[in-house]
Amino acid sequence: MAALPEPEAAGPGTATVFPRFPPLLDQHCHGVLRTGPDRATFEGWLTEAHIPQRPAASPGRERATTSFSYFDTQLGFAVRRWCAPVLGLEPHCAPHTYLERRAALGTAEVTGRLLRAAGISTYLVDTGVPGPLLTPGELAETAGAEAHEIVRLERLAERAADAARDASSFLAEVSDAVGESARTARGFKSVAAYRCGLDFDPVPPGAAEIHAAADRWLETRAPGGRLTDPVLVRHLLWSAVRTGLPLQLHTGFGDPDLRLDRCDPLLLTEFIRAVSPYGTPLVLLHCYPYHRGAGYLAAVFPHVYADFGLTLGHTGARARAVLAELLELTPFGKLLFSTDAYGIPELYLVGAQLFRQAMTELTGAWVERGEWSHKDARRVTGLVAGGTARRLYGL
Amino acid sequence: MAALPEPEAAGPGTATVFPRFPPLLDQHCHGVLRTGPDRATFEGWLTEAHIPQRPAASPGRERATTSFSYFDTQLGFAVRRWCAPVLGLEPHCAPHTYLERRAALGTAEVTGRLLRAAGISTYLVDTGVPGPLLTPGELAETAGAEAHEIVRLERLAERAADAARDASSFLAEVSDAVGESARTARGFKSVAAYRCGLDFDPVPPGAAEIHAAADRWLETRAPGGRLTDPVLVRHLLWSAVRTGLPLQLHTGFGDPDLRLDRCDPLLLTEFIRAVSPYGTPLVLLHCYPYHRGAGYLAAVFPHVYADFGLTLGHTGARARAVLAELLELTPFGKLLFSTDAYGIPELYLVGAQLFRQAMTELTGAWVERGEWSHKDARRVTGLVAGGTARRLYGL
Amino acid sequence: MAALPEPEAAGPGTATVFPRFPPLLDQHCHGVLRTGPDRATFEGWLTEAHIPQRPAASPGRERATTSFSYFDTQLGFAVRRWCAPVLGLEPHCAPHTYLERRAALGTAEVTGRLLRAAGISTYLVDTGVPGPLLTPGELAETAGAEAHEIVRLERLAERAADAARDASSFLAEVSDAVGESARTARGFKSVAAYRCGLDFDPVPPGAAEIHAAADRWLETRAPGGRLTDPVLVRHLLWSAVRTGLPLQLHTGFGDPDLRLDRCDPLLLTEFIRAVSPYGTPLVLLHCYPYHRGAGYLAAVFPHVYADFGLTLGHTGARARAVLAELLELTPFGKLLFSTDAYGIPELYLVGAQLFRQAMTELTGAWVERGEWSHKDARRVTGLVAGGTARRLYGL
Repeated sequence: MAALPEPEAAGPGTATVFPRFPPLLDQHCHGVLRTGPDRATFEGWLTEAHIPQRPAASPGRERATTSFSYFDTQLGFAVRRWCAPVLGLEPHCAPHTYLERRAALGTAEVTGRLLRAAGISTYLVDTGVPGPLLTPGELAETAGAEAHEIVRLERLAERAADAARDASSFLAEVSDAVGESARTARGFKSVAAYRCGLDFDPVPPGAAEIHAAADRWLETRAPGGRLTDPVLVRHLLWSAVRTGLPLQLHTGFGDPDLRLDRCDPLLLTEFIRAVSPYGTPLVLLHCYPYHRGAGYLAAVFPHVYADFGLTLGHTGARARAVLAELLELTPFGKLLFSTDAYGIPELYLVGAQLFRQAMTELTGAWVERGEWSHKDARRVTGLVAGGTARRLYGL
Repeated sequence: MAALPEPEAAGPGTATVFPRFPPLLDQHCHGVLRTGPDRATFEGWLTEAHIPQRPAASPGRERATTSFSYFDTQLGFAVRRWCAPVLGLEPHCAPHTYLERRAALGTAEVTGRLLRAAGISTYLVDTGVPGPLLTPGELAETAGAEAHEIVRLERLAERAADAARDASSFLAEVSDAVGESARTARGFKSVAAYRCGLDFDPVPPGAAEIHAAADRWLETRAPGGRLTDPVLVRHLLWSAVRTGLPLQLHTGFGDPDLRLDRCDPLLLTEFIRAVSPYGTPLVLLHCYPYHRGAGYLAAVFPHVYADFGLTLGHTGARARAVLAELLELTPFGKLLFSTDAYGIPELYLVGAQLFRQAMTELTGAWVERGEWSHKDARRVTGLVAGGTARRLYGL
Repeated sequence: MAALPEPEAAGPGTATVFPRFPPLLDQHCHGVLRTGPDRATFEGWLTEAHIPQRPAASPGRERATTSFSYFDTQLGFAVRRWCAPVLGLEPHCAPHTYLERRAALGTAEVTGRLLRAAGISTYLVDTGVPGPLLTPGELAETAGAEAHEIVRLERLAERAADAARDASSFLAEVSDAVGESARTARGFKSVAAYRCGLDFDPVPPGAAEIHAAADRWLETRAPGGRLTDPVLVRHLLWSAVRTGLPLQLHTGFGDPDLRLDRCDPLLLTEFIRAVSPYGTPLVLLHCYPYHRGAGYLAAVFPHVYADFGLTLGHTGARARAVLAELLELTPFGKLLFSTDAYGIPELYLVGAQLFRQAMTELTGAWVERGEWSHKDARRVTGLVAGGTARRLYGL
């Protein structure tokens, strides 16, 4: 497969590689850093590990130090393969060459080039992550796209706690903020997976229970402290469910704050059943390595959708294989593209390219073997790329 | 790959596509509807979801309604690909064209064509499901095949409860019915996975415990009520184990009544150990997405077998990949073909075709690469297609 | 792909098949039998099942006996494919032909040929398994390679218990033996997965608790009895952690003594976190079918490594597919080759050949598609084959 052409010559390079691919709607992503990262910290954005560092060496033994690097991952290889040409370099150039070129061009130029090359027309931005990031509006302007907000519930509650006098004013502010978000945003997002695991009590907590939990949390909370109380997390989830807006839930892998085996989306089964009468769409994010279970949930519960989020970027050359597994049980009108990109614009381009490539090759092979028709392949590709999300989020 | 020829011209159309494939023994299936389904309800037979319906839409937002359909799944595409030609249509014709043709031909003609094209010579029919279905004998006659019965334990107990005066007469009737079934049927089937999950207490319940559970159930049971009491489910399992007949156990995915994470066949490990001294064969049905664990159990416990049931039909173009995973640890003499077909004859044809195609292509590739010999490939294919099942069920 | 040439003609036959493959460091294996096995017991070494036996037959039914054999597995096929040519036979010759030739050549000749053909330059030998086995030194001499010891913690404790007068002398001996092993061996190994499952309490047990557990165990222990007490297993793990040497942990499948669902490496998450401040490398062995979770742990915890052990040999023609899944999230400098070979030398050759073939084909395909560079493919192959292990174990 030919490398991406120089972007100077051909505009967003993706056009020539996947000429007829529909525009993408990235239904779950985050902002891009305003400045940097510098060379020393770039690797930190390539991994879900907390601090990129050399693997441990056994004490008391002499050994050669090695050049362990988070560039030595499928994601790192994919960045050098897909992003280097957009910065005017050969694919798979050395990491230091890539970082030098990146520094020479400057953050604004790099961000603009990579975002435009990603070919994403609409962003749904979860704004609840820390960092000096571009706002959704700035992201949209830089990319020549449009952007909408997804409100992260736990952040909403932490902001309310920062300002609250007591439990009553905290709960009132949460209620107001959820209601206001339902008017201005396109959906909600929860990281309950990180905060208390997905095996939480599926039913809505009672008013007294909520009040007591709020009291307890506000009393013991350090300034800026994270919400981990399961009663309050459940209260947030049910507050969001009652608005009827799509609710995105982190499932599957992420950074080491989570216990992966408590992020299996199947642990949400009872919650999914409890939400069913409300009809509120539940969107399972990422899902890996439990994506087949997520496909099952999307197949048997009409209000459940599956997304692949950071999975394709992090599995790189294996993205096609993982996407194929998601396409086993997930009904084709229930699968949603996203990048989960955060911090560096490379993650947008890599997520988009790997999806386009994987989807094109998978469906192409099925058509060639007579298992799918051409027409179906085009139609399903359009649904996953953004058609279903446009309907789901009312865009 | 060429479409199936018109069945009128070539008898069971499969012959020309997989010319030397051995006849199939479908070791786990259900009956076919006597009449219908009509166009409105056909989709319901394509999904394990309870009621086919449009995905939920967020209230309060205007949006275009879309044509969500359970035809938009790997199974739906496989039906259009493999069944349409047998009804004289182009592969991948539109769903409405398929349903119109189906209605024009009539149930009897459609059922006859599809069953004969499936190339299944023997059916083992679990008769414990509801619906106006063909009996095993009628199914056999329609298909030009033979059929034998598999008795579903929970249904046997529910029938006994319908007629019982008290716990003693209920338990006596269960005992008689199990004994009688062991003389007339080829094996037993349990849906313990649905009724109490596979993490049940692995040891046989005591007599007093069984009697108390029967009392309790008969007192509280609504007419026609399902058996979910774990003590009675265990009593049924152990009653079946003592007959020595093969015992089929639902594992893995199914309809949303089950909790998929409680259907992991590995949860049966202690039960498998407890059954070991009896030597009774245990057949793990379906298994997806826990099929690799099922392969492990078949590899290390001599009395355990694995089946793929509804998995191949529901994963369609991905059936080859899933079957390949089952062929990792499962000893080749421990893997059994079945369709789990229920209601519509399409499921027989799709299950059979996808298995023949997947097995032919997988083993063909391994032979081409020198990893398997031709002779082994033919022999193993014969075992999975029916050779092992014939021995196991004494046919 | 051409069969291996006759070893007489070409020395270690692997050279011509994978001409530029780096030498292998087998970071986890066991000894080879001094004599035998005879024809009747050879199959027992091809399976993790306890006793190779025919699958159970239903009593009371007449049926043909069949030739069920543990040769009818991916591992059995791989042995006939890769080892037969080294013994001067056609690939895929009949099992009885293979066993006759094996007997005619004699154990010493067979072992020598197969080990030299395996192309392994360094062995790390877990010496804590029973049987009349070659010592690491003998293994090294036979293979023309070098060997180092890995000390199995549970065996160390059992040896100490065999000689102990009381709990105090037992614990003192354990402490001495761990200290001595840290000077003479390259690492430790634990089979906690078998003995108490991986969901053990992650924190170090207290001194009093350890003493009480030792008392209890020594009082009730039959001569030669296995250590299964979770407090003592944890004490061993933490004793090893404090030495800083790499600690290998069995995870994933093995023989039926384990409960596979209690061997998911994700159950180690809290233990991994607790070990983190010590920096001691933790090596997750085997991992299948939980290898994607193992890859996640290696990705987010700097001191965690993943190995594939017995997985490639047992999955045979599917080794490439399984290795590909390990190469999704596992950082490329965190993945380690091993064979887990035990008893018969065939397992060394098969493990080595399947890895070389899988790695060559996977990376070759990625290079051809432009997803990896040639240079990276060579470099990563060298890391997995032994480069990372050499650094990790200080070789």
